[in-house]
Amino acid sequence: MFNTVPLIQITRGARLEVVYRGAIAVVDARGQLVASAGNPNLTTFLRSSAKPFQLLPLVESGAADRFGFSDRELAVMAASHNGQEFHVQTVVDILRRLGLDVNALQCGIHPPAYPPAARALEDAGQSPNPLHNNCSGKHSGMLAQCLDRKLPIESYLDPQHPIQVTIKQTLAELAGLSPDSIEIAMDGCSVPTFAIPLAASALAFARLADPSRLSEPRRSALERIASAMMAYPEMVAGTKRLDTDVMRAGKGRIVVKGGAEGYYGLGLLPQGLGVALKMEDGDAGRGRNAVVVEALRQLGALDDQALAALSRYVAGPVKNHRGLVVGQMQPCFRLT
Amino acid sequence: MFNTVPLIQITRGARLEVVYRGAIAVVDARGQLVASAGNPNLTTFLRSSAKPFQLLPLVESGAADRFGFSDRELAVMAASHNGQEFHVQTVVDILRRLGLDVNALQCGIHPPAYPPAARALEDAGQSPNPLHNNCSGKHSGMLAQCLDRKLPIESYLDPQHPIQVTIKQTLAELAGLSPDSIEIAMDGCSVPTFAIPLAASALAFARLADPSRLSEPRRSALERIASAMMAYPEMVAGTKRLDTDVMRAGKGRIVVKGGAEGYYGLGLLPQGLGVALKMEDGDAGRGRNAVVVEALRQLGALDDQALAALSRYVAGPVKNHRGLVVGQMQPCFRLT
Repeated sequence: MFNTVPLIQITRGARLEVVYRGAIAVVDARGQLVASAGNPNLTTFLRSSAKPFQLLPLVESGAADRFGFSDRELAVMAASHNGQEFHVQTVVDILRRLGLDVNALQCGIHPPAYPPAARALEDAGQSPNPLHNNCSGKHSGMLAQCLDRKLPIESYLDPQHPIQVTIKQTLAELAGLSPDSIEIAMDGCSVPTFAIPLAASALAFARLADPSRLSEPRRSALERIASAMMAYPEMVAGTKRLDTDVMRAGKGRIVVKGGAEGYYGLGLLPQGLGVALKMEDGDAGRGRNAVVVEALRQLGALDDQALAALSRYVAGPVKNHRGLVVGQMQPCFRLT
Repeated sequence: MFNTVPLIQITRGARLEVVYRGAIAVVDARGQLVASAGNPNLTTFLRSSAKPFQLLPLVESGAADRFGFSDRELAVMAASHNGQEFHVQTVVDILRRLGLDVNALQCGIHPPAYPPAARALEDAGQSPNPLHNNCSGKHSGMLAQCLDRKLPIESYLDPQHPIQVTIKQTLAELAGLSPDSIEIAMDGCSVPTFAIPLAASALAFARLADPSRLSEPRRSALERIASAMMAYPEMVAGTKRLDTDVMRAGKGRIVVKGGAEGYYGLGLLPQGLGVALKMEDGDAGRGRNAVVVEALRQLGALDDQALAALSRYVAGPVKNHRGLVVGQMQPCFRLT
């Protein structure tokens, strides 16, 4: 079982009603553990929080420039997007540049994650296709890695495909691990997903925030990916999404990437810190959101304006259907 | 903090990815603890799982007969309904019989819980009103209690209102507690909600399933409420809801009522058992659903046909967007 601790509690009246458990690791760009809650070496899957690192080989190899990808396009390659029209169109543009179309994507199909986008599709009498899959940007980036290296595109999901081997090697280097120590399983979109300790994941995010100790071309590539994600936060997730709202509020000082089942990675640029956290129950709603914002607050990454912009995610009074305060949602961890 | 144990785990590949924690108490109609997982005396709010008992004074006082309420109407008074047209119309009928209308309901407003119902309302250019609130049936039942006793209806939410005092007293008797020991807070729909130990709640559900040791008129009133809920399971929740599907599959042998924040109460008629459970994180989705069905299975309450009917709620293989098996969801408790 996981070694977790209570991170958020919700009381009703005077009594406890809900507890969210999890673990958090905070690491600096040298790899030093700065703070933690629960087991900082809890080992579980990064899921979509790995996307900035799955994109890294495309950028550091120079392929992104050879294809002429814009920062906006790189941002959607690092995205778990909402399937909104602007996401879908950007992925279509990327595929067109590669001489491919939707049929090359092997991510599978689900309706757009943003309900109004799903509804618009339905109203238009259309079925969702792989472009609407939240991972379609990542998959188009993987296809670009194949084409640049003149490798087959049909087998790009295979953990033994050279681009997947390179991605695993790249993540291992960033996280300070040997590739052999990284356990893989299959992600929701059928590519390999990586299980590593939270502290190792936090180191990778610290290096995304502060790659200054790394050599070129990795240093510039990480800078470009972080800049692209922060410059186009709506491409990385979309309307009413935590990732987008945190990067908007952070104004170039915070880069984040959420993953499925309550995983979250953050890079704090001025502080040169990386944070990785996992919600034990896989929560990616009110509990996870409140933990992320509270962690940022405790680490001094949010000024009053940013906190105000993120107020809908902040733990606080619980109101009922008549707007009456019936309880309190409160953080119960301290990153010291 | 809660004293809970892992109830459901989800693995991906060979590694743990998610754990749902909680506690379960199984009690017979004599009040004997038969089985448990975690702390059977965990004390938290029943929320909507109290609805059958909040309805009891209306039935045992004879008021339900004086008003001529049908079993279908009683079922919606014990409901956390979807706000589907047939729920709303039934509540309208109840209020009309009382000489009241929607303006008497003080439950507050939220859109229908069933997304197609919410969408139909939106498409019709209408706003949700208190009839759509999942608790509107319960509130109409409380208004009936007021009118039958010639008490003011304006103040029916007040914990000191005589109908609320009677409800608390009634629950206390069923649960084997003194009324003073029951902590109250305000529910989502603004009425009092009750915090009692799981085992006490399970006793109340055991008596709902098997009231044979109780004297009249309580015995017949509990029989009528359980029968009404099982005869009209679609009124108690609605389309694609666990409560409805479990009672349908149970064919008169299982009466259940879910509550907010991962609370659940069950009565098993042939076994004469009551079950109360709480998900620590408030989950009311895949985790809670799988716990409920597994608890029923372990207690011998589901035959193969019933298990098949509930297959969408059963823990099992986890599939990704291409339908590939990527992990397993498994129960990790044993009710012995």
